[in-house]
Amino acid sequence: METSFLAWLKGRTRHLPQPRLGIGDDAAVLDPATLGHGCVATCDTIVDKIDFDTRQHSLRRIGHKALAINLSDLAAMAARPVAILISLSLPRDQPSRTAAELYEGMLPLAEMHQVAIAGGDITVYDGPLTITITAIGAASPAGVWRRDGAQAGDAVVVSGAFGGSLRSRHLDVQPRVDLALQLREAFGIRAAIDVSDGLSLDLDRLCAASLVGAELTLSAIPIHEDCVRHSEETGRSPLDHALSDGEDFELILAVPRDELNAVLSADFGAPLTTIGVFTGRTGLWTIQEGAHTRISPRGYLHGSDGDE
Amino acid sequence: METSFLAWLKGRTRHLPQPRLGIGDDAAVLDPATLGHGCVATCDTIVDKIDFDTRQHSLRRIGHKALAINLSDLAAMAARPVAILISLSLPRDQPSRTAAELYEGMLPLAEMHQVAIAGGDITVYDGPLTITITAIGAASPAGVWRRDGAQAGDAVVVSGAFGGSLRSRHLDVQPRVDLALQLREAFGIRAAIDVSDGLSLDLDRLCAASLVGAELTLSAIPIHEDCVRHSEETGRSPLDHALSDGEDFELILAVPRDELNAVLSADFGAPLTTIGVFTGRTGLWTIQEGAHTRISPRGYLHGSDGDE
Repeated sequence: METSFLAWLKGRTRHLPQPRLGIGDDAAVLDPATLGHGCVATCDTIVDKIDFDTRQHSLRRIGHKALAINLSDLAAMAARPVAILISLSLPRDQPSRTAAELYEGMLPLAEMHQVAIAGGDITVYDGPLTITITAIGAASPAGVWRRDGAQAGDAVVVSGAFGGSLRSRHLDVQPRVDLALQLREAFGIRAAIDVSDGLSLDLDRLCAASLVGAELTLSAIPIHEDCVRHSEETGRSPLDHALSDGEDFELILAVPRDELNAVLSADFGAPLTTIGVFTGRTGLWTIQEGAHTRISPRGYLHGSDGDE
Repeated sequence: METSFLAWLKGRTRHLPQPRLGIGDDAAVLDPATLGHGCVATCDTIVDKIDFDTRQHSLRRIGHKALAINLSDLAAMAARPVAILISLSLPRDQPSRTAAELYEGMLPLAEMHQVAIAGGDITVYDGPLTITITAIGAASPAGVWRRDGAQAGDAVVVSGAFGGSLRSRHLDVQPRVDLALQLREAFGIRAAIDVSDGLSLDLDRLCAASLVGAELTLSAIPIHEDCVRHSEETGRSPLDHALSDGEDFELILAVPRDELNAVLSADFGAPLTTIGVFTGRTGLWTIQEGAHTRISPRGYLHGSDGDE
């Protein structure tokens, strides 16, 4: 990066945790002691006109989102965020100003979760604003949450509410990091995933990894107030949006039956709701008029390829 | 990522080292024991028409380069590569085929250095092919090489030869990982950097970080044979190209005087050459007709911003 930008960034990140060796060398060095019982790593890219729109959204909100979605992936693993690396591909118009505004959007969230900015890369090019963040976290002593641990009989529990996020909430999402860390500490939750592409689609992914299915009580699914307004505009039902919109960045958890009451009464700053039960029969189902009816997993599939 | 692509990738990377938890969950998990005495992390982006040209270069060579430049950053820290995360931003034409070819270009290098593919992300968009790789390595028990350790009196030693890389060598670069690991094990080298943007520019960066200067013996600088041919076309001298072309991905090392002979006679599979001495006087200098003459650091500055 440009020397003057690096100098600004070093000053601006002075109050954040510092890696053993940070910005300005060929690579950063993190103390293995900060990585706890496992180094958890994830990377996610967001792109102008796909994941945000620079014509409508401020660069600070876009920066916030880029970091938030990566921290949401760490939350889905019950990993404590430790450090991030930020790669920016910037259009040619005022790249230094763009970079600084994006960083300003990330810094409050980095500070809230005590994340070190360990390094990065800036490229100026003929293309849309693109932000790739690699987030590195520490596994808890009890291990990470995986997608493949759900068992038939576990309750399907979700945080928060669903649908209508793309009206604008997706830019301001607060990743469920603290909730995940507190739940990991207190309970033996068996599997988790975060909802990025759609409640039904991400639940189906968790089910597929765990070789189980799920039976949903559709009336129990928490509908976000944005979803109701969104539904009035589209004419599709709020439930339909809640199942398929995505970008909610809430958690889906597989909770053993004997812990369910304790989990639901825990006060960890986010509402938790049981929306169904994992079953030996694969696929997503609901009971309508006494008969099993299949629910098709729907959500955002990233073109012919897609995000992990 | 698309399920079928993930399945292909899992099969194709089966012979590589496996993370504790790999491709297909929300994040990867690396065993802290694999990260040695420090988790070294770096990320670098390359973009079509800037760092390569899809009209001229095969996707496999481009994939190789994307990984090689990141491993070169780890080599500059004397860190052993452990795992990578790969984010691909792909044009809409045949993205799955493009992704597979890029991966095919990376796999031989990943295998050579026993690097795990820990995760990644694919976005299909209206922009040029862009590859961001985050490389994670393990620090040696003796610690990493940094940029800021050179002392006046240390020799300026370089690996390989310089100039003309952009004729095509830059796509096939072999990062100096093994050389760095062997040197780190055997000697007390005090500082290092890899030459990505230009020999004089990167040497100047190392000098600035170490608060020293360097006095170069220009006739000692190893000129690559590509550079001679390149020079015939441009009319600029081979030395001029060697000092400023960049993309050589060779190492610059600060070697204490009392270890210099042993370092130069070590047979670690790459030529090492002394090209000058670090000095208390800051800046880059050469002696011409008995007088100190300043050398301007030159090389590739990444627009008004730039790579780290």
